[in-house]
Amino acid sequence: MIITFEGIEGCGKSTQIEKFKESLKKLKLDYVTFREPGGTELSEEIREILLNKDLDISPLSELLLFESARAELITKKILPEIGKKIIIIDRFIDSTTAYQGYGRGIPIEIISKLNEIVVGDIKIDRTYLLDAPIEILEKRNSHKKKDRIERESFDFHNRIRMGFLKIAQKNIDRVLIIDATKSVEEIQKIILEDFLKIYGYSTTG
Amino acid sequence: MIITFEGIEGCGKSTQIEKFKESLKKLKLDYVTFREPGGTELSEEIREILLNKDLDISPLSELLLFESARAELITKKILPEIGKKIIIIDRFIDSTTAYQGYGRGIPIEIISKLNEIVVGDIKIDRTYLLDAPIEILEKRNSHKKKDRIERESFDFHNRIRMGFLKIAQKNIDRVLIIDATKSVEEIQKIILEDFLKIYGYSTTG
Repeated sequence: MIITFEGIEGCGKSTQIEKFKESLKKLKLDYVTFREPGGTELSEEIREILLNKDLDISPLSELLLFESARAELITKKILPEIGKKIIIIDRFIDSTTAYQGYGRGIPIEIISKLNEIVVGDIKIDRTYLLDAPIEILEKRNSHKKKDRIERESFDFHNRIRMGFLKIAQKNIDRVLIIDATKSVEEIQKIILEDFLKIYGYSTTG
Repeated sequence: MIITFEGIEGCGKSTQIEKFKESLKKLKLDYVTFREPGGTELSEEIREILLNKDLDISPLSELLLFESARAELITKKILPEIGKKIIIIDRFIDSTTAYQGYGRGIPIEIISKLNEIVVGDIKIDRTYLLDAPIEILEKRNSHKKKDRIERESFDFHNRIRMGFLKIAQKNIDRVLIIDATKSVEEIQKIILEDFLKIYGYSTTG
């Protein structure tokens, strides 16, 4: 089973992934988590280039770097766990469509073509999209140190938010939109209940 | 005008590119040279990962890294020079098809799709393919320090040689196969005469 968490910067993904892992632990369910870009030696090198070096990178190069890191993560880490553990991924193909497509303006069909080449027939079972207006999230996260992508403009992040919502509309069976302005506990409850329903796990026994 | 030089390791590309540049200089023709992967700040970072770090990289990731470096080189360096100078490139799309396709076994149609996305409608006017049996080149270059790709097996390099020859067959109007066992001076003469014919330059004045 593959579960992805998506959303703009500061939406609370990391916190919710931690909470979700705690819940799975209590239920004695085996899981493994990955974050993109990263998770392998090469992918972490690419992450360093993408987020931390102060390089001016063209949109298509950026997209191809993300896809390269993804190809490596899939081959070496995700494929060996499929059918064995619950796989949780912090950002996956929807982030590429939202950031490099809706954000940077690369045609969505180019991104789909690349995702098809890299992801192949791996199926995501559920995506939790944490959504909130940029203004609210920016206020909430104003103290955090920002990386190369986080430093982009309000407009850029707003295009991405709208992009995520379009992706959710096109994939209503897969993507659950969650109001990220709710409390951590409320969101945690929504995700866990939804997950258990999909997983076919009865909470009463 | 875009001229590419292709061939397996040790075929004498670098020497011939130097000779070709000397000839262009004498003819007072403006040129610019690039090598792949490389040529921009990001592309050199990628080159470092691809050739010098001792990482185990999956074939698809390797391909995407090459394409990322290429996208950057095209956007920032090649496009601005088109129509202005003679552009000489040390390895380009044929190396990708030969190494990642015939060498690593990635389906040729995936490579073509990626090259199409990255290269767009940039047209190569002439490709000089320096060809020789692997055995001869290995003997000639046995003293050189080898990078990650050069350290691959004889079989790998032989598949690449055969790959280059297939590419040449499919693109007879673009690719000129040159016997790399000939002397430096002989090869230099073949390339220059061919180039001048294409360029429409009369040697007699």
